[in-house]
Amino acid sequence: MEVIIKVARDSDPGLVAGAIAGVIREGKRPQARALGPSAVNQALKAVIMAHHYLAADGVDVICIPEFSDIEIRGLKRTAVTLTVEPRDTNHGS
Amino acid sequence: MEVIIKVARDSDPGLVAGAIAGVIREGKRPQARALGPSAVNQALKAVIMAHHYLAADGVDVICIPEFSDIEIRGLKRTAVTLTVEPRDTNHGS
Repeated sequence: MEVIIKVARDSDPGLVAGAIAGVIREGKRPQARALGPSAVNQALKAVIMAHHYLAADGVDVICIPEFSDIEIRGLKRTAVTLTVEPRDTNHGS
Repeated sequence: MEVIIKVARDSDPGLVAGAIAGVIREGKRPQARALGPSAVNQALKAVIMAHHYLAADGVDVICIPEFSDIEIRGLKRTAVTLTVEPRDTNHGS
């Protein structure tokens, strides 16, 4: 099950990292979604920090980045979605 | 074997993606390194595009983002390194 975590340019990467790690610990699939270079940068920092948090629990996570078409106030925009999952997860699970 | 690919804010993501895919096809480990939000955004776009290029060859890649301390003109800076590898690679190979 996917859980979308929206990341803005002023999001605190530490808080987002905690949210990502929490979703992984629940056995779900966190997807950090960001629009624009600053937000994407914050989302990636959060994924790196979540990697460290989870490594301390013995969980090794990997990241799958992809583009996501979203609509904001009727305008189509291309966001970046960073899906985080344990390394040994099977495809599409 | 790691191959570092430096990504700047004005790098063409398509060219960087081609470089990443080429390194994977050689059986090596590409590491896209970027400093600053705009460059990080370009690097991530390149990884997404490389994912698509390689998927067309039947190769599924994942990404491991991490911070890298680098030195530029005597100043320490924190870059982001995006390591790309086939999904089924063992740790640390």
